[in-house]
Amino acid sequence: MATVPLIDDEGASAEVRAVFDDIRATRGSDFINNFWRALAHDPALLRATWERLKAVMGPGALDPLTKEMIYIAVSVANGCSYCAHSHTAAGRAKGMTPEQHGEVMAVIGMAAQTNALATALQVPVDEAFLA
Amino acid sequence: MATVPLIDDEGASAEVRAVFDDIRATRGSDFINNFWRALAHDPALLRATWERLKAVMGPGALDPLTKEMIYIAVSVANGCSYCAHSHTAAGRAKGMTPEQHGEVMAVIGMAAQTNALATALQVPVDEAFLA
Amino acid sequence: MATVPLIDDEGASAEVRAVFDDIRATRGSDFINNFWRALAHDPALLRATWERLKAVMGPGALDPLTKEMIYIAVSVANGCSYCAHSHTAAGRAKGMTPEQHGEVMAVIGMAAQTNALATALQVPVDEAFLA
Amino acid sequence: MATVPLIDDEGASAEVRAVFDDIRATRGSDFINNFWRALAHDPALLRATWERLKAVMGPGALDPLTKEMIYIAVSVANGCSYCAHSHTAAGRAKGMTPEQHGEVMAVIGMAAQTNALATALQVPVDEAFLA
Amino acid sequence: MATVPLIDDEGASAEVRAVFDDIRATRGSDFINNFWRALAHDPALLRATWERLKAVMGPGALDPLTKEMIYIAVSVANGCSYCAHSHTAAGRAKGMTPEQHGEVMAVIGMAAQTNALATALQVPVDEAFLA
Amino acid sequence: MATVPLIDDEGASAEVRAVFDDIRATRGSDFINNFWRALAHDPALLRATWERLKAVMGPGALDPLTKEMIYIAVSVANGCSYCAHSHTAAGRAKGMTPEQHGEVMAVIGMAAQTNALATALQVPVDEAFLA
Repeated sequence: MATVPLIDDEGASAEVRAVFDDIRATRGSDFINNFWRALAHDPALLRATWERLKAVMGPGALDPLTKEMIYIAVSVANGCSYCAHSHTAAGRAKGMTPEQHGEVMAVIGMAAQTNALATALQVPVDEAFLA
Repeated sequence: MATVPLIDDEGASAEVRAVFDDIRATRGSDFINNFWRALAHDPALLRATWERLKAVMGPGALDPLTKEMIYIAVSVANGCSYCAHSHTAAGRAKGMTPEQHGEVMAVIGMAAQTNALATALQVPVDEAFLA
Repeated sequence: MATVPLIDDEGASAEVRAVFDDIRATRGSDFINNFWRALAHDPALLRATWERLKAVMGPGALDPLTKEMIYIAVSVANGCSYCAHSHTAAGRAKGMTPEQHGEVMAVIGMAAQTNALATALQVPVDEAFLA
Repeated sequence: MATVPLIDDEGASAEVRAVFDDIRATRGSDFINNFWRALAHDPALLRATWERLKAVMGPGALDPLTKEMIYIAVSVANGCSYCAHSHTAAGRAKGMTPEQHGEVMAVIGMAAQTNALATALQVPVDEAFLA
Repeated sequence: MATVPLIDDEGASAEVRAVFDDIRATRGSDFINNFWRALAHDPALLRATWERLKAVMGPGALDPLTKEMIYIAVSVANGCSYCAHSHTAAGRAKGMTPEQHGEVMAVIGMAAQTNALATALQVPVDEAFLA
Repeated sequence: MATVPLIDDEGASAEVRAVFDDIRATRGSDFINNFWRALAHDPALLRATWERLKAVMGPGALDPLTKEMIYIAVSVANGCSYCAHSHTAAGRAKGMTPEQHGEVMAVIGMAAQTNALATALQVPVDEAFLA
């Protein structure tokens, strides 16, 4: 259970409903996942978070699947259980293959390992990286 | 300064030199960055880490630049200062443009924010994500 | 399930019971939450943790609700699921309103985002902050 | 050194200058700290981050100093060195006394400790917290 | 539920079965825990992870129980719920007594607290530690 | 530079001096490292932290070197630069050999990797670990 009530469609205020409508239209799906239903207890936070997410995750210099794989990586490193689930699902919905998923896992594991080693050894930054 | 001595080429044992040679050949560059020189104080750990990194970061279902951007993301989320520097440099060496770098930053920032919100709200995982 | 047994009142040793009694008296409530029942498998650790918590969280230069909101923030950033639940509940018990809770969430999300960006960009500390 | 160039006033585009002007006006100070100068390499990210920060950190149900102390707490838990410096300075600028600072430190330390213990023991969430 | 299917013995390919057999032989137990069954959806990642774990966790300059207690400590600090459970169980299987477990908990809690304080105060590294 | 002034022996109040004296006597060394000099700006926090550290890190069911290696591991996983330096130095002062240090590094790296994989895959806890 969440630390706040989840807002279903019936309980949504007009302000919340407008955001839910935009999520549905943007994603081309009727499904509103629990993250947004939890945020909806605070309509201003819901709106600000959704507006920014929509702007950040749309196509640009990087394609949406690449962005989603980066999102998975951050979510895992931050230890967010909900986010690991939701963004792995989102990656698949955007076409991530099992082979790609496996490689994302391998890079995440490798990075976690060398991050720990670099921190343990307190490696000084090379001059070449500061140029 | 590191918590261990950095091993320069003169101080490298035959075992360490063999790994340094492979790093140079694989990367097509004479430069050995400090991470490997620090790990070299423990030749077995150096070899195992390099062999695995080479296998994970080579081309596969994902291209090397995509892997490098995922590596940056994990390094930042893990708070590794050295790794943020070294993998940003590696991304650029693999062709990451300023626009792509900017979008990686934006996704990392967005993910950090929603990771925190999902954890704060303890959002339950949707049934749809468990299917 | 915990990695250690939870100690109920019947199973509590005299040493554990004395701490439970002090928790009840301090809080003006009969309820002992699971954190203390888990710690109780190690009476010395239970006592040291409770004594320090009582000293830190009492009134001082900051009021108890402000301290509780800081505690929520740290717990979320550390990814502690139990703690997010228990300290959100504690905040409400100390009078945190939905509006205040919403603002705590917004600050946590904002801080997580700018923390990630500052780490990603490896921003050097301004001279002005070191004076 | 940062992983991107810091933008000084002379090098700022009109878009960046507009944000810098708003930061100066909002804060009543001519000082622009390095975080914003680093973000300025990406004017859209600069603007989005500043606009959101301004909205979140202004007065509301919580006073600005309380928000700043929560910001310090998150920054420390996320291990952001730059942010620990900048938000401690910001807290002082908003009137945080040494006694308040000491209590923020004590709560952060206490929370880090009990977060770790709750995770180590994998304490199940009490029914009472889910009501 | 995991983000990938768990592979049971019947569903295991020859490559996966070979790793499962080695896990069983190495541990002298028929039990394969879920971590390996989840990794088995990617046989190359399963093999690389198991081979490295076997090499790292075997006897050496440190005995296996000491290594396991270090593993518990890292897992807790990284907020990995599964790992806190699995490595606490592994520690007990290797002879960790309740008294030793209690001291591991106390050190983890103490370290988390002083880590947070050192980061909050941004303590400069002593010259003596850099020699 | 720290976010608070470091207190040298001349600037120490009687209360701080008493703690410094106990640190010197306990460690059999005249050296007071910067962590304590930073904490000394808040004598009550200094005393509470030192008293608890002394109790936790003394001999018990685990020997002091084993405790120190666990402390290194937590400090690295928490990304504390100061602590990685100070506790690596402390480990060496307590007799940690280069071989032992190398194995601590290898376990930390391995744990970081499998922690990330278990979180990425959201592996469900085995029934056997809950018994």
